[in-house]
Amino acid sequence: MKVSELGEFGLIERLTEVLAAENDGVAPERLLVGIGDDAAVWRNDTSATVATTDTLVADVHFLPGRTPWRDVGWKSIAVNVSDIAAMGCWPNFALITLGLPADIESDDMEELYAGVGEAAKNYGVTVTGGDVVRAPVVFVSVVLTGRAELDDDGQARVLLRSGAKAGDKIAVTGSLGAAAAGLRVLLRGGGESEDEQELIDRHQRPDARVEAGTTALDLGIRCGIDISDGLLRDLAHVCQASDVGANIQSEQLPIDSALKQVFEPAQALALAAGGGEDYELLLVGEETLLEELGEQIDVPLTVIGEITADDAHRVRLLTASGQGIELPSEGWDHLA
Amino acid sequence: MKVSELGEFGLIERLTEVLAAENDGVAPERLLVGIGDDAAVWRNDTSATVATTDTLVADVHFLPGRTPWRDVGWKSIAVNVSDIAAMGCWPNFALITLGLPADIESDDMEELYAGVGEAAKNYGVTVTGGDVVRAPVVFVSVVLTGRAELDDDGQARVLLRSGAKAGDKIAVTGSLGAAAAGLRVLLRGGGESEDEQELIDRHQRPDARVEAGTTALDLGIRCGIDISDGLLRDLAHVCQASDVGANIQSEQLPIDSALKQVFEPAQALALAAGGGEDYELLLVGEETLLEELGEQIDVPLTVIGEITADDAHRVRLLTASGQGIELPSEGWDHLA
Repeated sequence: MKVSELGEFGLIERLTEVLAAENDGVAPERLLVGIGDDAAVWRNDTSATVATTDTLVADVHFLPGRTPWRDVGWKSIAVNVSDIAAMGCWPNFALITLGLPADIESDDMEELYAGVGEAAKNYGVTVTGGDVVRAPVVFVSVVLTGRAELDDDGQARVLLRSGAKAGDKIAVTGSLGAAAAGLRVLLRGGGESEDEQELIDRHQRPDARVEAGTTALDLGIRCGIDISDGLLRDLAHVCQASDVGANIQSEQLPIDSALKQVFEPAQALALAAGGGEDYELLLVGEETLLEELGEQIDVPLTVIGEITADDAHRVRLLTASGQGIELPSEGWDHLA
Repeated sequence: MKVSELGEFGLIERLTEVLAAENDGVAPERLLVGIGDDAAVWRNDTSATVATTDTLVADVHFLPGRTPWRDVGWKSIAVNVSDIAAMGCWPNFALITLGLPADIESDDMEELYAGVGEAAKNYGVTVTGGDVVRAPVVFVSVVLTGRAELDDDGQARVLLRSGAKAGDKIAVTGSLGAAAAGLRVLLRGGGESEDEQELIDRHQRPDARVEAGTTALDLGIRCGIDISDGLLRDLAHVCQASDVGANIQSEQLPIDSALKQVFEPAQALALAAGGGEDYELLLVGEETLLEELGEQIDVPLTVIGEITADDAHRVRLLTASGQGIELPSEGWDHLA
């Protein structure tokens, strides 16, 4: 079977099974969070390491010639920082692998690294080393670690996908849909208006919500994920991991204002609910905690729905009158 | 300028400068070993994390259709374990990025992961997660961490490239040249004889010398590197980092026995001294310590030369009568 038929998540499931079979299913006692959350977590002596990896491939995740190399470098760091933020942690050390064809210009790669350095400085990340390899197209693969505290019982104090309970409220940072809209503007050759340029920027230079994630954790919130695959899809990951369902109020969604200027209302809703790469945080917890969080952080926080008791793990997008809305599938399956 | 004109090490130097400029050259106090050794090292609370990354790209580092997928998976872990071993440490946690075209067979990727799992079990590595991305060719990128103890002054107790002193002896584990010879046998379509098959195996399923590295560190040896680019080239890295030179006695080199059966003596010497991907360890230290090490480990250890006081950092390959031998350039520049 081709991996395109299995899809990204089907393949990951199979590969995880193969690994478990070879290892006889034994995971060491120090591994606190394994495959299946925004980042892995393992215990050191008196704290824990949080680690994640994300890769950008030319012609898959960015368009050489249209995306400035500096932005590719920035984004390669920012998307990884977003995963660490989604665990409620601060990032610290990175390793970078750069794949490149032998005939690429050194200046372009130096621009890419300037973007890496700019983002590293912005988020307090130290690049500790890496690897340069020849490859048919440029790719940049980043591994990023962060630090988590341990609870009294030796478990890591982090935001998990599995921390949602029926009755919890669901909130998102910032605005939704701009990055996916920016990609569409880029692909159709747009970008003349200020709104269109704003959307392109949001696609090429996403911002990771570290302050929101770490503050949420400090306040006692224990469930979060970053929105990389699209709101509904990432919320579905939470529902599956937590064995719950979710209702989202469509009129509450913080649809990006530039997006609303450039796209029709139905398209704007579809991009906000289903478009990927926003890198906003989705946080789940008690209403009072989310209210307190909203007051403490600089970025807007909007409550958009509620967790339900539902062992079928349904995620429903509802109108104000409670009717279900069907959206065209807009999530990212990176292998489809 | 094309990166092929700069070469791998020229490019890495430039990218490192770009990063330093963006970061204003500030490295945090917790970073103990940065860019330029076999692995990076940073301090946790009471120990240190050692981290490395290495990537295998189809048609660059392996040949789809000729290299079994299981061996690609094995090697992707083993080459990273070798870097951790070269720091004198045990490996523990890995993250894996798998790049693949959408039309590749899932069975092949499962075989690759079976090899990953086999190697992980063999070396005591736990795969904690990773990423699957679409790419024009298959690549597998592994990040591996290990653990180091701290000295009383808060520095990491590891093997460094910068630890060589004039008068130290130079030793290597195992035998040299088999992996590079195996690649040549593979490329010319050989592999019928037992010796040829042995060489191919050594290229496709290298073994990392964790016992030798960790025992060396325990004995008080403080300088090591793994032989991935070729003996002379990797020794040159040590000489540059330690501000010394080196003399190697060609007749002392433990040239692989299968290699001597398949290739002419001059070629065998060139492959042993210059061929890459042996993943043996090169260890530098006092003669008595190296002798003690040789007695304690299961793999053969051979003294092949001596560190010299030489601020030009020359690495000389000498005959028994002390004459210099010039070899064709056989090191690996991955961008050339």
